[in-house]
Amino acid sequence: MGLVNHKFTLAARPVGLPKRTDWAYVEETVRGLHEGEVLIQVLFISLDPAMRGWMNQSRSYVPPVAIGEVMRALALGRVVASSNPLFPIGKHVSGSFGMQEYFISDGKGLIEIDPSVAPLPTFLNVLGMPGMTAYFGLLETGQPHPGDTVVVSAATGGVGAIVGQIAKIKGCRAVGIAGGTDKCCYLLNDLGFDAAIDYKSEDVTQGLRKTCPAGINVYFDNVGGDILDAALTQLARGARVVICGAISQYCVTGPVQGPRNYLSLLVNRATMKGMLVFDYADRYAHAVQELAGWMAAGKLKSREDIVEGIETYPDTFLKLFRGENLGKLILKVVAD
Amino acid sequence: MGLVNHKFTLAARPVGLPKRTDWAYVEETVRGLHEGEVLIQVLFISLDPAMRGWMNQSRSYVPPVAIGEVMRALALGRVVASSNPLFPIGKHVSGSFGMQEYFISDGKGLIEIDPSVAPLPTFLNVLGMPGMTAYFGLLETGQPHPGDTVVVSAATGGVGAIVGQIAKIKGCRAVGIAGGTDKCCYLLNDLGFDAAIDYKSEDVTQGLRKTCPAGINVYFDNVGGDILDAALTQLARGARVVICGAISQYCVTGPVQGPRNYLSLLVNRATMKGMLVFDYADRYAHAVQELAGWMAAGKLKSREDIVEGIETYPDTFLKLFRGENLGKLILKVVAD
Repeated sequence: MGLVNHKFTLAARPVGLPKRTDWAYVEETVRGLHEGEVLIQVLFISLDPAMRGWMNQSRSYVPPVAIGEVMRALALGRVVASSNPLFPIGKHVSGSFGMQEYFISDGKGLIEIDPSVAPLPTFLNVLGMPGMTAYFGLLETGQPHPGDTVVVSAATGGVGAIVGQIAKIKGCRAVGIAGGTDKCCYLLNDLGFDAAIDYKSEDVTQGLRKTCPAGINVYFDNVGGDILDAALTQLARGARVVICGAISQYCVTGPVQGPRNYLSLLVNRATMKGMLVFDYADRYAHAVQELAGWMAAGKLKSREDIVEGIETYPDTFLKLFRGENLGKLILKVVAD
Repeated sequence: MGLVNHKFTLAARPVGLPKRTDWAYVEETVRGLHEGEVLIQVLFISLDPAMRGWMNQSRSYVPPVAIGEVMRALALGRVVASSNPLFPIGKHVSGSFGMQEYFISDGKGLIEIDPSVAPLPTFLNVLGMPGMTAYFGLLETGQPHPGDTVVVSAATGGVGAIVGQIAKIKGCRAVGIAGGTDKCCYLLNDLGFDAAIDYKSEDVTQGLRKTCPAGINVYFDNVGGDILDAALTQLARGARVVICGAISQYCVTGPVQGPRNYLSLLVNRATMKGMLVFDYADRYAHAVQELAGWMAAGKLKSREDIVEGIETYPDTFLKLFRGENLGKLILKVVAD
């Protein structure tokens, strides 16, 4: 076919924040399809904090990306060639396509996308992994009850913004922690949070004391470090702490900063529980349906921070670690 | 009556390990009883790591001991004078009598002891708070299933020894972490643990990898610090980590060492949960009955490390933090 693919492969295991040279930008010709395969043109690629973990040598819940292998990434695309009758040309699909322009799939693991339901990037946000993570992480692991105070960190990020909005839908108070006035205003004015704490300009412990006078019932943590420690000091009795991520710790070069105030779990008979969205795969369809319903009813907003150009990936990715994105960070691969 | 009481009152808030001068040793005359009161001669006093926390200024799950107030301590004694018909002279009782020879009670909170069931010190061990803590902490918070691997730190201590033995009774594998060959031999030969790890002579992470090849299902933590971190690296999927105490951290002068490997909770979908025994007060009687039954059946041993002389308290208390006690540490107040 003569199609050219550009991709980022892992070139080195990063130390701290990843550098441009930790990846190689490779050009290759797309090979022909075998029986049952489909060729997907990648349209949008999700940029997630978890990707930093996949670059490390150590095995986590998935094997690390190997040196020389295409950088792992969730993405969304369109079938442009097919020898698989289940996925005809023109169909939209999502999956783990990697940081590249074209992906060849045997059809396994492909998720069909219906573009009439919502704009395409939404399927990498509220109707994709961030939505699934927020939905199951809050509702299953966090177990919120109406009237509970739910606090979420990285509250304008992909997962955080959805967590707070679902908390409101479920009759909870939602308090968001975010960096900067703009983000805090967005939480209060656009997403309907009850309170917002700007970790860049105020003391988070004081902010939590003020905004959560009866303590925190559910703390949904995406950041770890000092903010997790602050939240631990303000737990209500029987609180649930959901460990979803720890972006503040993914790029540290020394040991991870463990939660120094973890004995608050003892004093408050509280629970800290880790969650991984993949465990709920058999219930994604139900969650998508419910989330789409909330969106249609105007109760849930999906906001994406879209950057154009796959070649910008190494720089764009760092926006996550600098707290520069407002909304789910997504790379747009193909210009309109 | 002219009786003389000796007591330790809190003289200063300790920094790090408590010093002799953090308490005052006070002599006073025992006052007469009011209507409804009983005078208890204290026979045995429990020495517990939690007492160190009660000496701090900050409020925890109980208010701190005030400066000048008698040092809080659980104890067991005999009624020697009474104007309360519920507690006649000669009856044995336990309660929070403090670090002193005599205690006047209005009867509230007194627990009656039946000395025909077991030797008196047992009521400060398997049939007292350590027993209740181990019983509810393991069975309710830890949720062990038959065949599970249960690991406990400070495994020869008051709570730890009981946790491991209950784990065995419930059909689990019991692995104990303790300091020194004598303690490890005691776990294996006397208490029936399946494996023991000597943290003084071996690497705990390696030891856990070797003795828990399928991972840890329940980790019952009494120590915190590096040993908690080692255990976190070896969790099985869905593991439960019971936070009962953190003796390694009670006397640190800097910040508490938080568990650096807490993200293992995420990778393994594991739970870390704090517990306080007081929450189960309405079920103590049932637990005592079951524990006494196991003792009578020879399935559960109660071992105390008894030191004589209330005046030795400041030194004897430090045995806990130096890991010098083998079994539940108890002060014997009155010589035979």
